[in-house]
Formats: sequence, structure tokens, C-alpha cells
Amino acid sequence: MADNKVYRASTTAPVNIAVIKYWGKRDPKLNLPTNSSLSVTLSQSDLRTHTTASCSPSYPTSDSLLLNGSPQDVSGARTQACFRELRTLRQALEASKPSLPKLSTYPLKIVSENNFPTAAGLASSAAGFAALVRAIADLYELPATPTELSKIARQGSGSACRSLFGGYVGWDKGTAADGSDSVAYEVAPAAHWPAMRAVILVVSAAKKGVSSTTGMQTTVATSSLFPARANETVPRRMKEMETAVKAKDFETFARVTMKDSNSFHATCLDTEPPIFYLNDVSRAAIKVVEEVNKEAGKTVAAYTFDAGPNAVIYYLEESEKEVAGLFKAMLGEKEGWEGARGSKVEANKSALEVVEKEAGVAVAGLKEGVARVILTGVGEGPLKTEETLIDEKGEPVNTVTNGS
Amino acid sequence: MADNKVYRASTTAPVNIAVIKYWGKRDPKLNLPTNSSLSVTLSQSDLRTHTTASCSPSYPTSDSLLLNGSPQDVSGARTQACFRELRTLRQALEASKPSLPKLSTYPLKIVSENNFPTAAGLASSAAGFAALVRAIADLYELPATPTELSKIARQGSGSACRSLFGGYVGWDKGTAADGSDSVAYEVAPAAHWPAMRAVILVVSAAKKGVSSTTGMQTTVATSSLFPARANETVPRRMKEMETAVKAKDFETFARVTMKDSNSFHATCLDTEPPIFYLNDVSRAAIKVVEEVNKEAGKTVAAYTFDAGPNAVIYYLEESEKEVAGLFKAMLGEKEGWEGARGSKVEANKSALEVVEKEAGVAVAGLKEGVARVILTGVGEGPLKTEETLIDEKGEPVNTVTNGS
Repeated sequence: MADNKVYRASTTAPVNIAVIKYWGKRDPKLNLPTNSSLSVTLSQSDLRTHTTASCSPSYPTSDSLLLNGSPQDVSGARTQACFRELRTLRQALEASKPSLPKLSTYPLKIVSENNFPTAAGLASSAAGFAALVRAIADLYELPATPTELSKIARQGSGSACRSLFGGYVGWDKGTAADGSDSVAYEVAPAAHWPAMRAVILVVSAAKKGVSSTTGMQTTVATSSLFPARANETVPRRMKEMETAVKAKDFETFARVTMKDSNSFHATCLDTEPPIFYLNDVSRAAIKVVEEVNKEAGKTVAAYTFDAGPNAVIYYLEESEKEVAGLFKAMLGEKEGWEGARGSKVEANKSALEVVEKEAGVAVAGLKEGVARVILTGVGEGPLKTEETLIDEKGEPVNTVTNGS
Repeated sequence: MADNKVYRASTTAPVNIAVIKYWGKRDPKLNLPTNSSLSVTLSQSDLRTHTTASCSPSYPTSDSLLLNGSPQDVSGARTQACFRELRTLRQALEASKPSLPKLSTYPLKIVSENNFPTAAGLASSAAGFAALVRAIADLYELPATPTELSKIARQGSGSACRSLFGGYVGWDKGTAADGSDSVAYEVAPAAHWPAMRAVILVVSAAKKGVSSTTGMQTTVATSSLFPARANETVPRRMKEMETAVKAKDFETFARVTMKDSNSFHATCLDTEPPIFYLNDVSRAAIKVVEEVNKEAGKTVAAYTFDAGPNAVIYYLEESEKEVAGLFKAMLGEKEGWEGARGSKVEANKSALEVVEKEAGVAVAGLKEGVARVILTGVGEGPLKTEETLIDEKGEPVNTVTNGS
């Protein structure tokens, strides 16, 4: 009788938003970056990918991946690299313990769900590859550390390596040609500085014009300012940022975050042809954050932008009134305030009045251009879960109602 | 009997638009730049300042300046520096020829008029200071060359030094602490490459947020990418651009022009706090130029942006159909097509159809955001004129109807 057992493991993995940006690959195949980067892992209560990895000798011969109910192409080099590396680790384990079932020889069936819209430009590939790698590693019962797994996730999507840790996470660019030292590491756990919060302004924008993979390689090839960023600016800022995180020094954290976002977008603009991710709505968010800080008399809020127009605004819990309260007064009509975090924020109308006086055009721009807000904060790395997306017969559990 | 004679001299001076941008001063008082720059002088038929300089022992004791019918403050250090340096040269002349009238001791009365709106962000200070310096130099009958006068105009407004020449003009940053070698020079006269044209899209924008003087010094002080631009990128591009102009190589001219505009705005974005001059309308202009070049299969148009959202788009006369014709089809309803240049341009509807298919959002953005167009081309340096703005009694001639 054939072995029909379905082996399963489930995990959730977080989104991370960099405060020192990854932009530029020195090896596109291995996703080896031209500079180190540093991110904050965001809470999985607000943004996460939930993934069940399974394998069985009874499965159809080819590996498969279902994301939010839609079958995905797994033949791409990135997904294949992750499958291959994880299988290799499992094979080694099986070779050392011959009693183990030969999971490495069985087809994989993966089911994933995001609790946020995939196309909103919210680093979904980072959470997605982190969850995929973590879930398969658990399925295979690999003894690998998060840092070892980060090398594999990196090959799926560069920034995914940082989503294998919670809290404040660095990604060392490394120097080895094989990528063996280009790994993620914990700068500080979430519990070290749990007061970090973020409000994300999701801009109602057209689709990304330039994919980040193409974009960053064009920047490396054509921007005359890029080498100064990669070789001088970022190494200096990595140190400043690690020190700021360890010291819980928000003002430095914030200043470096904003400067680094602007530096990254500056090298995009210096690309031939120029790449624009910031639009007039993004500029309005920058202006409003500047006014919030001016009004507070110190830096209580920091904007950062990935390869898209959405603003991620970091602040500390103690500044909720000045930051989240202002945005609730301004954008309270938008989607996103209904959750546990949002509903407890009190709309700060007097702050809005002040900011409107100084930056009325920017406030109007945000009211018009922001589609929804997401309230979140620093959070944990991947978590094992008993909630499975694949039943014991190997069939997807139907939990998704919208296929977005 | 007192000498009541009114001495007068009149000149017109052009606007120039840089293709290698001036941004950053190594000496703010003397307007000494951190990098060299290069510009195209635009035709005075389209954009010019007309200035009459006069002096008389009969004038009230203080110097005065009337611009477009409005009295201007001449007590600022910049205007004072120009007056002082020109008087010093006149004094030397008077000392060498005692028969000359002592014009250097008489109060100056200057009357200026622009044939374009001052506040449109069209480098009016460059034309203004060039005309002021040239007119006073003529009034004083100074034997100074344009290069010598450029040192004086530079102290009024940096880029004004380039408006003392026609055609293609360099401004050497120089190295001397006193600015004696920071001068403008002719790269090629207009007659060398007379086919250069420009269409300017004047964006209906709010006022400049950050003055260029403040902005450039903040960039020098805070941008980590700026040194690479000033020390490496611009010196290389100056050579490429001079070679391109001399060889009448439009494709190189255009490519370097676009890259340098983007590099300049990139360092603005990398400033703390960031400076934004480009807005969504500017980005739309960039997109449309990219489509025009794609459609043409070669680079026939080049955008460049000064410290504001207006697009200046250079092209050659032979590409009028592809460039100006497209914009006439797109923006024919706007002001600016009624003059001799504009009325002869034929609206190129089929080009517009193609661009609308590829970049419909950008075309809509320009239709909505452009207030007027200006058609112009390469032109001559300052020209003496008999048309005076001050009558023989020293009274302003009333030619201005609007005081804009």
C-alpha cells in the first residue's frame, strides 16, 4: 500500500518596512545587495501572510502554490531556488537519519493567504517568501536558524530575509560571491522597543510604473550619485541606526529614516530614464509630517517610502495623540480606523486646525489622495500556527472569500 | 548754472536656461558656485529684459530702480555690489581721462521692463541683472568685455553672468577666493548652431516653496550625494556638453541635459528637509518627452527643469513637427501660440494620438496643469537699443500697461 500521508506545517510571517533602504543588487541571481539595510518588522495582527506547506507522495508530481485562492506560477527561478535549497537541507537530514520519511522527494503543495490586499504595494513579497521558507523549513523539521533561512528567503525576494526576524532587523550585504554572508540578523527584538508604531497611508494610485527589480538595476547602471549612497552614505547610516535602535533614540531613528528614504528616491530620480515613486500625495504626506514635527518642537514622526507612493509614518506610542490623532482627524472617513488600534485613537481636531493653517494644500492633497490607512506597530517574526490552510487529505481549506 | 544733463544708455538682455545646472555656492556673498554650469541663451524676441540706465547730477541723491512700473529696493547687498563695482570701473576711467564727466558720482536711475511675467519662474533675475550691468556699463562707456562684466553680474544673481553672452555659454566655477576667475565664456555663438529651439510649458503652480538661494545652501550643507555631483558628475558632463555643442550633436546634448536636470533635482530631494521643485505636472512632461523620443526612434527632445515645475523642452528646428507640433495638438488652447513662432507650428494630431495611447494620464496631466506655453530658440546676448525707458528729463517713459 502506498504512503498517502499528507505532511503539513503552518506559519504566519510579517511584513517589514525598511528605514535604511535596500536598492541595488550586486548579484541579481542570488539577490545580493549593493548595500546593507535595516527594517522594522510590523505586527502580524495588522499585516501578515499565513502559509501552510505540505507534501505527500500522493500529490500530483509538480509543486504548486495557491495564493489568496489563485494558482501561482512556481516555475520562476526565485521560487525554484527556495524549493531547491530547502530540499537540499532536508536531503542532508534524511541522509543523516535514514528513519526519516523522504519528504524531500515528495511534491510540495503550498497554500498562502495575505490579510491585506496584495497589490497595495505593501511589501507582500517579503512576507510571502518569509512565510514560504519558514513553513517548508518547519514541514521538513530543519534545524536551521532564522539567519540560515534568511539566505534562502533572500533568493526569493531580497527583503524577505528581514521578515524572518521580529523587531529591528539588519541585513548585512556581505562580501562573499556565493552570498553565504549576506544574511539577516536581529538588531533588537520587538520587546526591546515595543513602543514603535506606524500609520500607513495607502495612496489611491495607479499601478507601479517600474518594477523594483528592473528599477534598481537601472539605477546601479546609470545613476552617477548611486555609488556615493551605496559606498559611503548607507554604511554610515547603518551604524547610526543600530545605535539609535539600541538606545531607543527616536529622534535619531526618525531623522535617519527620513534622510535615507529621500536618498533612495534621489538615486531613483538620478536614474536614466528617471524613476518616480513619490507623487504629489507622497509630497503632501512629507509636508504634513514636517508640520507635525515643527508643531511638536521635536521629531515625533518619520516618513519613509518604498518603491511606491504609500507613506509609512513611524512614531512612538507616547506621540499617538500628535501623530495618529492628527491623521484620524484628517482622514477619519477613510477605511482602516475600525480595528482595535484605530478605534482607540482619538481624533485630534486642534492639531488638524494648526496643520491646516500651515499646510492646507498638503492636507487637502491627503484627503483627496489617500485611499485607506493601516495602523500598526513593531511586531514579532514568523509564528508557528495550528491553523492550517490544507486539510488532512491535502485539499485547500476554503477560508478566502475575496480573491484579491 | 548746475549741470542738469541726463546721461542714458539702454540695452536688452536675454534669459538663459542651463543644461548643466548651477546649484550650490562655495561663497554666498560673491555668488561663487560649487560647480561649473552651461546654458543656452534664449531669443530676446520671446523673453527679454529691457533696461535703461541713467544718471544725472540733478537726480535725488539715492539710486533707484523701477521694474515693470514698481519701485524696487536697491539697498540689498547684491544690487549694491553691482552698482559699486561698476562705479569703481568708471572712477578708474575718469581718473585716467580727467575730461570725462564724473558720472560715477551721480545717482543712478534705472528703469526695467520684462516682456514676460516676472513671477512665472523664468529666470527673470538672470536677464534682469545682465541688463542692469550691461546698461550701466554702456552708460559709463566702460571698455570692459562681457567676460569682465560677467564677474559683476554674477554678484547680482549667479546665473546672470551667463546672460551676458548669446548662444551656448559656460560659467567656469573658478578657484580664486576673490571670484576673479569665476566668469562666463562663450562655448559657441548662436550662429554656430542656430537650429536649437525650446518650448516652455509654464505650469499653473503655487509660488515657489523654497527660494533657490536658501535651497542650494541647505543642499550643500546636508545632502550626502551632493559632493559626488559637484566634484565628479558635473566636471565630466561639462566636457561632454561642450563637445556636443561644438559638434552639434543633439542626441548627446539632449541626454546630458536630461540627466543633469534629474541629478540636480535628486540632490534637492536628498536635502534635509527635502526640496521638491518637480510636481506631478513636471513628471507628466518628462513622461511625454520620453514617449516622443521613443516614437521618433531617437532623441529629438530634451526636458530640463530649473528651481520650479516649468518644463523647458529643447529640440531642433528639424524636429518641430514631432515636438512643437505634438504640444500644439495637445495644448493648442493655451496661451502662447499666437506669436510668429507659434502660429507657424502645425498641430500634429497623429503624434498626439500615439502619445495618448502610451501615456494618456500624462497627457491629461499636462492639459490640466499647463497654464501657457512659450516658444523660443537660441538667441543673441545683450543688445544696445535706442528705445529708451527714461526721457531726456529723467522721467520714466510710460510703456508698461500691466504691473506684473
